[in-house]
Amino acid sequence: MIRHMATINSNFLKLKAGYLFPEIARRVRVYTEQNPDMASRIIRCGIGDVTEPLPDAVVKAMHEGIDEMANRNSFKGYGPEQGYEFLRQAIVDHQFANLGISADEVFISDGSKCDTGNILDIFGKGNVIAITDPVYPVYVDTNVMAGNTGDADEKGTYAGLLYLPCNAENQFVANVPIEKADLIYLCFPNNPTGAVATRVQLESWVKYAKQNDAIILFDAAYEAFIQDPEIPRSIFEIEGARDCAIEFRSFSKNGGFTGVRCAYIVIPKSVSGKSDTSERISLHQLWSRRHSTKFNGASYPVQKGAAAVFSVDGKAQVTELIKHYMGNAKLLREAASAAGLSVFGGQNAPYVWVGCPSGLTSWDMFDKMLIEAQVVITPGSGFGSAGEGYFRISAFNSRANVEEVCRRLKALVA
Amino acid sequence: MIRHMATINSNFLKLKAGYLFPEIARRVRVYTEQNPDMASRIIRCGIGDVTEPLPDAVVKAMHEGIDEMANRNSFKGYGPEQGYEFLRQAIVDHQFANLGISADEVFISDGSKCDTGNILDIFGKGNVIAITDPVYPVYVDTNVMAGNTGDADEKGTYAGLLYLPCNAENQFVANVPIEKADLIYLCFPNNPTGAVATRVQLESWVKYAKQNDAIILFDAAYEAFIQDPEIPRSIFEIEGARDCAIEFRSFSKNGGFTGVRCAYIVIPKSVSGKSDTSERISLHQLWSRRHSTKFNGASYPVQKGAAAVFSVDGKAQVTELIKHYMGNAKLLREAASAAGLSVFGGQNAPYVWVGCPSGLTSWDMFDKMLIEAQVVITPGSGFGSAGEGYFRISAFNSRANVEEVCRRLKALVA
Repeated sequence: MIRHMATINSNFLKLKAGYLFPEIARRVRVYTEQNPDMASRIIRCGIGDVTEPLPDAVVKAMHEGIDEMANRNSFKGYGPEQGYEFLRQAIVDHQFANLGISADEVFISDGSKCDTGNILDIFGKGNVIAITDPVYPVYVDTNVMAGNTGDADEKGTYAGLLYLPCNAENQFVANVPIEKADLIYLCFPNNPTGAVATRVQLESWVKYAKQNDAIILFDAAYEAFIQDPEIPRSIFEIEGARDCAIEFRSFSKNGGFTGVRCAYIVIPKSVSGKSDTSERISLHQLWSRRHSTKFNGASYPVQKGAAAVFSVDGKAQVTELIKHYMGNAKLLREAASAAGLSVFGGQNAPYVWVGCPSGLTSWDMFDKMLIEAQVVITPGSGFGSAGEGYFRISAFNSRANVEEVCRRLKALVA
Repeated sequence: MIRHMATINSNFLKLKAGYLFPEIARRVRVYTEQNPDMASRIIRCGIGDVTEPLPDAVVKAMHEGIDEMANRNSFKGYGPEQGYEFLRQAIVDHQFANLGISADEVFISDGSKCDTGNILDIFGKGNVIAITDPVYPVYVDTNVMAGNTGDADEKGTYAGLLYLPCNAENQFVANVPIEKADLIYLCFPNNPTGAVATRVQLESWVKYAKQNDAIILFDAAYEAFIQDPEIPRSIFEIEGARDCAIEFRSFSKNGGFTGVRCAYIVIPKSVSGKSDTSERISLHQLWSRRHSTKFNGASYPVQKGAAAVFSVDGKAQVTELIKHYMGNAKLLREAASAAGLSVFGGQNAPYVWVGCPSGLTSWDMFDKMLIEAQVVITPGSGFGSAGEGYFRISAFNSRANVEEVCRRLKALVA
């Protein structure tokens, strides 16, 4: 007889055990244990984590924020769950000017990973979820946890998800599908491929979403790396997006906030979904309630620091950071090309997406780079089965490290 | 014909529109608009938010954390999702010494409101949820959102929840029920009533949980305010709790972190729930996966500040803060007693729970205190129907304000 007891969310048991980055860390650890003399030679271009210090303007503002908390008269307790007005307004003024977004459509949080995962709280069951392949694993895993998928096959492909293949043929930008989707995850500039979508491509997605009453979940975490003035920086540059899109933004990759934690979602009041009784319900209202009930605002000194990203000094310092990382990306692109490999991304994104030398799988190439060149990259197949045969090099590093990676890559492959 | 479109989580529509604190804010706003000359007289003892500055040790550590981020060699990007080892270990050493808790059973987060809400991600459907009445509204609302309840009646009581009545008779400590529950929310020292549970009472809960294979969700956010050495500070002081309890702790009320944001959960590896195929699954493993997938670690300077709470200076400074607030609580208790009202709590908690003068409902008393004494309190009925006839006074304030509140309360009621 089975005793009655508290039940767990069994959807978690569908998740594949080896999440990508822990598996990378494991292989690096095994290698360094077996080759301790090589440990100091290892250069990490795997995880997409910034390496350069916080901009001075941010440092200054965070110190000021803390000093305010040290004084009874300027002390800040609980802030607004949706974020301080000074930050929400600065975001609208500096990132969404003339796009019809108001400050109360911006919700501050402690990170885009949280936001892209938590957003599923406000959606119902039975939605068809469209995901590009390759893709940022968090979109997939959070849908698995929420019960929006079936089981995975041996390649890690989950039943019930609508995968949109991205490949060299479509330059890693998914075309709108024939099938009807309800929620569509798009990420531009793309992690992991570094691809960007043109205005015409985004227009086709907005048109598709409006025709199908679908919602676009637009992840623009890497927006600051766009160099081409023709490439839209926000989905809200596309007419009609206010009726069918949510945008995710972060301070992680522009301001270097991966360890500081600050991000935001933009949810226009005009985006809606259908209730059980077929009423149209504003997603803004639902997220506002979710945010007030399950979140207590981002840290005050952190929000002060985030606002400083938009100050005159902050903007200039962020521009320098972006220039540094994009300079790295250029060198990595050139080195991979010179080594005779096919190269994508890295022109409007901090990720260079490279075809493996012929005959090698993604993990083969990962091992080769680690063992023969002591460089950690990310195997493309870790982002989905369509990533097989590719690897991702992150441009987040010092110039000296990147130059050394370029030398080793050419020596290894050319 | 209903067009197909993205569905929303219709459980959100069951939530009662007027969450307690927004309604309080609305009434205060209306009053000050109608009585602008009274605005400066208003003293807020409503929301449980700290008022005193951060301890010096915390301020110093946070400044140091930011300076580390300003230098390439000490810069911190993504931290461990579960929190930095230095903080997890400090928590075990200073808060759970000799209780058999290891550092990897502690998960750092950005707040207890998030943790108590997000924990439902790892539980399944069909659990009987036990909630005390009155109760911290977040427990109820997050269960409503998760689909664990039916609709609410006009008093705000949700179908499907097992309410455990707390009243003067049981000194606001719920007895174990006759019915079988699967998840039990307990909060000691209690918000809103300020009640504490004795060792014997907690033992009866652990025994109940073990007999019923239930999980206790133990919220100890106000642990630092316990003055009586006989009162357990952690559920893990009770034998057997390691098999059936999760504990929530926060830096909000001891270190004054309500605006800084840092908290943690303790999940022993021995706590488990049942999967769809009736296997016992470790909740630790599920939460670890949840935390790595939907969270990206708490802010580094914030974690530095939190660790400083356990330094020699930090501990002394926190002791002074607690002494200050508990001194306030004592004055409030005495004043309410002197006014002839029945008084609970405030001896091991920063909340004083007071019976309304006869004939007045909780909201009547709220209005009377606001309009006649310009003091904002929290109506007990806002925490559940069993809170009707009571009000909560928060001891989080300056001494001068508290003394003034005492004078006004006595003048109003006595």
